[in-house]
Amino acid sequence: MKAFIISVGDELLIGQTVNTNASFLAEQLTKYNYEVVKISVVGDDEQAILDELDYSVSLADVIFVTGGLGPTHDDITKKCLQNFFDKSLVVNPEVLNDVRLFFQKRGKTLTKINEDQALVLEDATVFRNLVGTAPGMLNEKNGKFVITMPGVPFEMKSIFENSVLPYLTEKYPQNKIIIKQLNLLTTGIAESILYEKLGDLAVLLSGAKLAFLPNEFGVKMRITVTASSEEEAESKILEIEQKIRAIVGRYIYGKGDATIEEVVARLLIDRGLKLGVAESCTGGLICNRLTNVPGSSNFFERGIITYSNGAKVELLNVNEDFIHNYGAVSLEVARQMAEGVRKCSGTDIGVASTGIMGPSGATENKPIGLVYIGICDDKICTAKEFHFGDDRILNKIKTSQAAIEMLRRYLLGIPYDE
Amino acid sequence: MKAFIISVGDELLIGQTVNTNASFLAEQLTKYNYEVVKISVVGDDEQAILDELDYSVSLADVIFVTGGLGPTHDDITKKCLQNFFDKSLVVNPEVLNDVRLFFQKRGKTLTKINEDQALVLEDATVFRNLVGTAPGMLNEKNGKFVITMPGVPFEMKSIFENSVLPYLTEKYPQNKIIIKQLNLLTTGIAESILYEKLGDLAVLLSGAKLAFLPNEFGVKMRITVTASSEEEAESKILEIEQKIRAIVGRYIYGKGDATIEEVVARLLIDRGLKLGVAESCTGGLICNRLTNVPGSSNFFERGIITYSNGAKVELLNVNEDFIHNYGAVSLEVARQMAEGVRKCSGTDIGVASTGIMGPSGATENKPIGLVYIGICDDKICTAKEFHFGDDRILNKIKTSQAAIEMLRRYLLGIPYDE
Repeated sequence: MKAFIISVGDELLIGQTVNTNASFLAEQLTKYNYEVVKISVVGDDEQAILDELDYSVSLADVIFVTGGLGPTHDDITKKCLQNFFDKSLVVNPEVLNDVRLFFQKRGKTLTKINEDQALVLEDATVFRNLVGTAPGMLNEKNGKFVITMPGVPFEMKSIFENSVLPYLTEKYPQNKIIIKQLNLLTTGIAESILYEKLGDLAVLLSGAKLAFLPNEFGVKMRITVTASSEEEAESKILEIEQKIRAIVGRYIYGKGDATIEEVVARLLIDRGLKLGVAESCTGGLICNRLTNVPGSSNFFERGIITYSNGAKVELLNVNEDFIHNYGAVSLEVARQMAEGVRKCSGTDIGVASTGIMGPSGATENKPIGLVYIGICDDKICTAKEFHFGDDRILNKIKTSQAAIEMLRRYLLGIPYDE
Repeated sequence: MKAFIISVGDELLIGQTVNTNASFLAEQLTKYNYEVVKISVVGDDEQAILDELDYSVSLADVIFVTGGLGPTHDDITKKCLQNFFDKSLVVNPEVLNDVRLFFQKRGKTLTKINEDQALVLEDATVFRNLVGTAPGMLNEKNGKFVITMPGVPFEMKSIFENSVLPYLTEKYPQNKIIIKQLNLLTTGIAESILYEKLGDLAVLLSGAKLAFLPNEFGVKMRITVTASSEEEAESKILEIEQKIRAIVGRYIYGKGDATIEEVVARLLIDRGLKLGVAESCTGGLICNRLTNVPGSSNFFERGIITYSNGAKVELLNVNEDFIHNYGAVSLEVARQMAEGVRKCSGTDIGVASTGIMGPSGATENKPIGLVYIGICDDKICTAKEFHFGDDRILNKIKTSQAAIEMLRRYLLGIPYDE
């Protein structure tokens, strides 16, 4: 099946918004064996949208249109669809009910233009919007399908994953060629070292593909195999995964879309362990990431964000002389903070961060990017030094990632050797 | 001048790469008074590229093509240009020299396919590549210009900024029409209510454009004006901004690319006020956002993340009976948490969040999305109820946004009426 993606919106043509909707759809469609033949961006302009619809059905079987479904004057996609399909708009009672509930739940007044979100093309297959008000729609013309979704990325994603994809999968069972991918997620190791450790990739992969995708959280290794059946693909992927794990398994914290905080949360919950976190330089990011995991109240007891030295002394019982002698950014203070939060919270494990995130705060001996992370239980109390970069936000992210990775290695008994 | 952007590359059609080249070019071109009429993405396919070139010259005056200029087999853009312009390729001695130096400098051996990078269309205006090997080119046909650049983002950017833009600016002194834009950033008000409050947009805008762009942080209003001089454009924008502010000014926390945490940080620092934050449901996100602002140690004293009831009682002095009678998610507890963190930190202002983020934790009377935010100083102590949605992460973001907005309105004396 050939697919065509049309993104509608002036904000894209003036470069104010990066077209992540198109790349998300293209990635998903490719994964499900659609061939994306073209992506185009048109403005909030009726003729341009109609021209593009005409052209797209000449080239592809399924057209995905995002954007221009909102309630205001510059949202004209629905009007264009009316013209294109020569259909009128009708109220969809289910959507109207969704919109009413959406407003009711937020204690807000429903207006006429909100109600108009429930207008859909007659004969449309409607995909409900669980996180916003504009629904998705599918319409057909001469055997070609046009699927329309709102342009707000999280709404589009939600509708695509919850409704469009299941609908398409059921209607068009997959083609014969099976492509499978697996992401192995590593952290705490550089791309180049990972690459070297893996040795001869041709031998390791025997025909499969491996991509190294570094980001601020670590390096993702994406394995891609092609096969003639699901089973063959699964077994090929598994074989390569096992080979890779045998070499660099200690750096792999998870696979697929897992986050390291989910992995660590699972370990803590399974073992019935409680955690307290003390943060200085990360300013709440470690706690925020851990509490993004549903059910985190089962292991996360409290977090103490001690930005001032006074708070470190008062809340975490850090020795004032230590701060004076070694500085607030030091191995000793990281250890004392971890010990302090563990004791005051009565938890099994304490983790702490202290560092210099920039742009200010550097001293002669302590550059921007210097970080200490402490971890302790009732027996050991240790800390480690890290060196990150110059960017404040990236430094916060990398420090939080290293802290959660130290926790993971502590829980699994993997030494933190680099 | 009308512009058309063609991005070439299979990696874009399979969603492996987000098309940041197109958004970069679109932003730059808009800034320099080009009207970007369309952006399209085509694969590494000769016929598709030729079709798109044919179509683009029918729609625009200048066509920008990126990608497919590399040295390997799937880079076919140059071949397509040969066909399109019916010209042959010739060696450009200056580029050949650049390529040789590029390899020499890196101690690498130059091969035949590297030397081929110096082949350009006869009659082309050549834009040298200072950071890679494939040069940019400009060719003309029937008064339309096609500008080709490599797809590697930093190479494209370097060629565009260092060569293409100066060339165009010299050749086409700015048009008479000046386009200016301004983003006004609002939060705490729905798109539809904002739209209704503004009344008759035709009267308000007198020819300018206004777009409403909602996301999880609020609604961005983008004003676009056209004028014949910089001064006229500035004065038109200012006039509309003032009209909008007169109606919905209280919801506008900033303009341009500002974040609400930067705005609030500035207010706190300017007034020499110190802040303590107590978080339950947001789990550190409020603290994390505030400490993303460089210099936040000037106002942020500490954060206390009390996930357990015990921590609320122990660290924030919340009354145990209140938790028992009203529940940890209640107006009363939000108030006591704000008061508690203000007192224990000795700061001027305390802010607190408590709520049910989901997916679990709802009770008969307290649904997922229910949130209370408290704020207090040494005189007043107040809290407000909010209703968000079902998604845990979005709920955390929206709660943090509402808390920082409450702080902003408190600092500016704006009542929080909805």
